[in-house]
Amino acid sequence: MKIRVGVVGYGNLGHAMEREIVNNKRYDLVAIFSRRDVQSELGTPVVKFAEIEAYKDKIDVMIMCGGSKDDLMWQSAQVVKDFDIIDTFDTHKLIPKHSCNLNKLAKLHNHRAIYSCGWDPGIFSLYKLMGQEFLHGKTSVFWGKGVSQGHSDALRRIDGVADAIQYTIPNVDAIKQAKNLKSNIDENKKHTRLCYVALKDGASEEKITNEILNMPYYFKGQEVIIKFVSLSQIAKLKKKMYHAGKVISVDEDNMIKNEVSMKNNPQFTAKILHAYISALPKLESGAYSILQVPLSYISKNYDSYL
Amino acid sequence: MKIRVGVVGYGNLGHAMEREIVNNKRYDLVAIFSRRDVQSELGTPVVKFAEIEAYKDKIDVMIMCGGSKDDLMWQSAQVVKDFDIIDTFDTHKLIPKHSCNLNKLAKLHNHRAIYSCGWDPGIFSLYKLMGQEFLHGKTSVFWGKGVSQGHSDALRRIDGVADAIQYTIPNVDAIKQAKNLKSNIDENKKHTRLCYVALKDGASEEKITNEILNMPYYFKGQEVIIKFVSLSQIAKLKKKMYHAGKVISVDEDNMIKNEVSMKNNPQFTAKILHAYISALPKLESGAYSILQVPLSYISKNYDSYL
Repeated sequence: MKIRVGVVGYGNLGHAMEREIVNNKRYDLVAIFSRRDVQSELGTPVVKFAEIEAYKDKIDVMIMCGGSKDDLMWQSAQVVKDFDIIDTFDTHKLIPKHSCNLNKLAKLHNHRAIYSCGWDPGIFSLYKLMGQEFLHGKTSVFWGKGVSQGHSDALRRIDGVADAIQYTIPNVDAIKQAKNLKSNIDENKKHTRLCYVALKDGASEEKITNEILNMPYYFKGQEVIIKFVSLSQIAKLKKKMYHAGKVISVDEDNMIKNEVSMKNNPQFTAKILHAYISALPKLESGAYSILQVPLSYISKNYDSYL
Repeated sequence: MKIRVGVVGYGNLGHAMEREIVNNKRYDLVAIFSRRDVQSELGTPVVKFAEIEAYKDKIDVMIMCGGSKDDLMWQSAQVVKDFDIIDTFDTHKLIPKHSCNLNKLAKLHNHRAIYSCGWDPGIFSLYKLMGQEFLHGKTSVFWGKGVSQGHSDALRRIDGVADAIQYTIPNVDAIKQAKNLKSNIDENKKHTRLCYVALKDGASEEKITNEILNMPYYFKGQEVIIKFVSLSQIAKLKKKMYHAGKVISVDEDNMIKNEVSMKNNPQFTAKILHAYISALPKLESGAYSILQVPLSYISKNYDSYL
């Protein structure tokens, strides 16, 4: 029997998720859940998020495609009471709180959750763990050049911002330092965060600039460039959602370097979430990061990779 | 209580393993087992392999450091009856047979085995699985430039060979083809296998050349260069055991590239085996490849990588 899937949230990731699932014969995409009044791109039924409980016996797995900043902490916690879920919660410092809560709820309601799935956190977490546990040296992560969904989303949620997009640009000198065990890297100097922001009528550039520069986890303390542009310029930029990233681990004698590059960030993330759907039925109830899921669980024929 | 470790086989990998374990306070290296009459480099007691059974209650984990070509299939099968083991069996095409046998024996005798651990098979198997299951495109593996332990060992076991070393050199054009979804790569054209061979007195160059070129799995059908040199030249070459490798996965829009480079191949492999010691007590009895072991099992503080 096919696994019946639902998508919660219909932004960039929700759209990409719809495309991935519709193109795969192993899964049935039953519905997309949204708080907004939207039409789906590929004809999937769209249901109000408030009505999600009614799908308890019609859907096996919900893919949580909301934003981490305001949505996923409460949405995943609510949805895991009735469904197995996969989410992409990516506010690194709040993951312990989120996962602990999800784990309690998942066990109580006999469901499984895979949290913080995607590329970072997600496969970059796997790379970081391997690099560090094998070499016991230094592990550095770089993002970009590319569009950060999480940071763009965080900008868009600022009161007075009409639309925004954020490019993460890695610092070439810092990458060189990452390959040398003895160089110290200042975490806040590793990237430049280039923000294109379109304001709502009457919003203050100064106030918004200040709010961005002081947003904890996302921008505070980092090298940030803010450019105020028109809505149409943002719309044009948003057509290209490329991104890239690398994890570099070194000790005195060895280097492990893991790189990803993608034309479309939400599509790449959707491919990873998609792969983990098949892992869920193999897990006991509870919440897991992908570090706790054997990679054999996402492959039908894992022995062929040895 | 510290995990008590034994090392079986005292070649290049056995030596590297001894260094890694002696330098780690979490483990006690109780003994090295060898069929030969050897002295250990760091003063670890050396015991005849024939006496290994007597250590049943004195050692928790045996690290199997013999060669894949002639040793590991029977040695791991014998040793897993009395101990938990980790082995590096790396003859790709024979892994299903080896693992099936190990799994039966491990379950019967209530022990755990992690087989085919190391970098390839091992972490490259993880990279290949991820790249392919996420992108569903094309995944290519390249080795080198560097010294292949398995291939050097295979050369040395040929009757008439006094000593040998094999360099694997990746083909630059093939790497370019790997990054393009639409190019086809001929597996046998991906690398050049450069063999330095010192003969025993009276051995025939022609006969040995023929034997190398026809050795299944290792050389047959591949681009092979054989150079006959003196024992002292081999000894000089063997002082440098550098190696490297990469796994490249692509689809139309995305690329995942995983690279390793090392100054000393046995040392790098030993670091990986070492990391997996801590996973063994967390497994049920049976034999596992590292694809089946959650990466969280090799880390005390895995959540910190999210």
